[in-house]
Amino acid sequence: MSDKTRFGLDETRIPEAWYNIMPDLKTPPAPPRVVTPDGTELGPDQIGEVMAKLFPMECLKQEMSPDRWIDIPGAVIDVYKTYRPSPLLRAKQLERVLGLPAGVKIFFKYEGVSPAGSHKPNTAIPQAYYNKQEGITKISTETGAGQWGSALSIAGALYGIDVEVFMVGVSYDQKPYRRILMETYGGTVHKSPSNLTEAGRHVLAMDPNSTGSLGIAISEAVEVAMKNDDTHYALGSVLNHVCLHQTIIGLEAIEQMALAEEEPDVVIACVGGGSNFAGLAFPYYHRKLEGKSNARLLAVEPKACPTLTAGEYRYDLGDEAGMTPQMLMYTLGHDFVPAGIHAGGLRYHGDSPLVSQLVHEGEAEAIAVDQTACFAAAAQFARAEGILPAPESSHAILAAINEALAAKEAGEDKVILFNLSGHGHFDLAAYAAYNAGELEDFDFAAGATLCGDDL
Amino acid sequence: MSDKTRFGLDETRIPEAWYNIMPDLKTPPAPPRVVTPDGTELGPDQIGEVMAKLFPMECLKQEMSPDRWIDIPGAVIDVYKTYRPSPLLRAKQLERVLGLPAGVKIFFKYEGVSPAGSHKPNTAIPQAYYNKQEGITKISTETGAGQWGSALSIAGALYGIDVEVFMVGVSYDQKPYRRILMETYGGTVHKSPSNLTEAGRHVLAMDPNSTGSLGIAISEAVEVAMKNDDTHYALGSVLNHVCLHQTIIGLEAIEQMALAEEEPDVVIACVGGGSNFAGLAFPYYHRKLEGKSNARLLAVEPKACPTLTAGEYRYDLGDEAGMTPQMLMYTLGHDFVPAGIHAGGLRYHGDSPLVSQLVHEGEAEAIAVDQTACFAAAAQFARAEGILPAPESSHAILAAINEALAAKEAGEDKVILFNLSGHGHFDLAAYAAYNAGELEDFDFAAGATLCGDDL
Repeated sequence: MSDKTRFGLDETRIPEAWYNIMPDLKTPPAPPRVVTPDGTELGPDQIGEVMAKLFPMECLKQEMSPDRWIDIPGAVIDVYKTYRPSPLLRAKQLERVLGLPAGVKIFFKYEGVSPAGSHKPNTAIPQAYYNKQEGITKISTETGAGQWGSALSIAGALYGIDVEVFMVGVSYDQKPYRRILMETYGGTVHKSPSNLTEAGRHVLAMDPNSTGSLGIAISEAVEVAMKNDDTHYALGSVLNHVCLHQTIIGLEAIEQMALAEEEPDVVIACVGGGSNFAGLAFPYYHRKLEGKSNARLLAVEPKACPTLTAGEYRYDLGDEAGMTPQMLMYTLGHDFVPAGIHAGGLRYHGDSPLVSQLVHEGEAEAIAVDQTACFAAAAQFARAEGILPAPESSHAILAAINEALAAKEAGEDKVILFNLSGHGHFDLAAYAAYNAGELEDFDFAAGATLCGDDL
Repeated sequence: MSDKTRFGLDETRIPEAWYNIMPDLKTPPAPPRVVTPDGTELGPDQIGEVMAKLFPMECLKQEMSPDRWIDIPGAVIDVYKTYRPSPLLRAKQLERVLGLPAGVKIFFKYEGVSPAGSHKPNTAIPQAYYNKQEGITKISTETGAGQWGSALSIAGALYGIDVEVFMVGVSYDQKPYRRILMETYGGTVHKSPSNLTEAGRHVLAMDPNSTGSLGIAISEAVEVAMKNDDTHYALGSVLNHVCLHQTIIGLEAIEQMALAEEEPDVVIACVGGGSNFAGLAFPYYHRKLEGKSNARLLAVEPKACPTLTAGEYRYDLGDEAGMTPQMLMYTLGHDFVPAGIHAGGLRYHGDSPLVSQLVHEGEAEAIAVDQTACFAAAAQFARAEGILPAPESSHAILAAINEALAAKEAGEDKVILFNLSGHGHFDLAAYAAYNAGELEDFDFAAGATLCGDDL
């Protein structure tokens, strides 16, 4: 056992391949489905044709690859090196504040050191790279509060590729700083719905004052990519290749925990679309198959949007508007609008099909927690460790604290590892509401609250 | 020569002592002076009595210590480990964008990974620690835009010591996010001028609508410390012990440049009060005395507040209100109010006496640059390296780029090292103004502009 606080890796230890969980799942992942408005189901080749207009071939290959390890291009590793390996830390001050016995230890992987302040660049960078390699000059995407749009704008700037972001109208107006960040990196940001697309014009014709939604923004971004040969579309979570790229988190963490001379008993991350959970947990799933780990894999979601714990496991659309294929996943229904919790990144009606499958097959656990308890945990963590967490990441912190206190209560040893997926420097309005005692809890089980203004 | 990008250090390589430049200066540093309103000059013992009501004894000892190396307490190193050693990176993408030949290389030390997003915790942490050791339960301080107040609030939370911040009124109203950050860490933030102090009440009686100034906020914070035995005052720059604590930056950098197998030809940092320049440059000054370095030490300041390049070298007060002793330094006059550039941390009429002495003795160079050129350099850096710099740090970036381009032009080899003292995630309003082409340049030489609203 090491008594150290930080477990850094030299850049030469950045993994050279991502881990693809698909060949290791108990059953093969279910393919996406497309049913046209007249009820016809498209074949795999037809779906492939549509997808090829949206994504680079390399990402599509990764989306269904049978290979367990997929090489990370050298040019991607070169850019990863600007912020990776990310640190793995032992939360010693938090352990002290919680009064934990020596046998209960909390470690966390910290992705907030990336230039975007979150884990999102881990996939934005390879996506931009593959598009550049295939001659694409522009990538369109949607963003809610701006985390994903920022990460993709950074990646676009690094590889000299234009990024066009459709930002949900209400966020565009109310949260200008993320928009400014994207623009500073050279991204073009449109308020959605816009007059630039048929989808946008259609919405504006029906409601000239529409404040937009993520579904509408997706429709606009996809339309731009479909209509322009030099333009592709990019998604920041949910898809298999996105989860793949994020596994760099867990692969590094395994090496760093070895430096700490510890094996985690539980591995924890928050879940919205699922990519940061996949990033940390999938490599530990592999380690369990190798017989080197007995870790529980614990996904934490908000009670306001409890996809894994209260959703149905079935085929559903990825977006509200029906522009995407259907995927087999846990879903609250593609027309579900979650309450306006501040963890905007966790407000998604569905979930990564791969993460969903892990939970469905009993290989991962899921719990749902309250917003106010998450912010209380975040504030406690910030005062102990110094780092102000993103509201999304606070879900993982709360679960980690609860696991630690349960072990203390039971007199058991436990090594806890969680993913601190981002910092909260862009979320201070949410902390202001928490400090003022103005935060509400929204329990899906008690009836969903419609409130779409905090995407 | 290494071809690597990141030069990380293991936590065991965190320096165990700070470097004190004072015994190595050509002449002994000049002592502070206090002249009372009736013209009496206080003796050193009298000054010491007043200082002892404001600062912990350990900081006062450091303020005039003859020892070259001063041990960093283990409890401070424990907290440093939550974010240190900070990374040293080679700016390879920027080198590529600038088209630099192989012999011209740019390295930077990145302090934005700290929980406050800047170098300020390097001194906030030991100051809070020493106060705690001496039984102090509260620290009062002033803050402008909030960088220093945030760092001290974090340090206070970590050691369980209350922090009371007097925040310049106009910033309190216009920049709520930094205030919220301080409050989330448990700090108490007052809008200055306040009704809580005689100094504040006096100002409000004269002008009930006063929006405050750093000078007034200092007066309020000092008054609180003077009147309460359990309360001390803390300053975030200028003083010798603050510069001392920041030398951890340069001591780490020297080890990291050794990993890179390079010696810098020029070491660059921005200068406001002087502490981040001191932090990087003082250890290189020592290295030059050892005969191991020939580096030029280059301080970069804004043309709107060109203390080192256009100020007088003389005794002057540290604040507008006359609450502080006089120090021998470069100064534009303690009543000088610089134009409202966005690099709020560089808007100080004076400078660290130690940095001033280095420049006065010809051991360090100083240049002054324009705001718009700094933001252009910052945007170029952000698009190349991903990291959005603080407006203060952009001054160092501009100088680094200019040094690199000059070497390229001259066909010379050059290794450049600069300090990226903080990230710009709290400065997006400034970037918005830059993106919109709305930034102005203010040249002190062309007549100072009075504009005190952006401290």
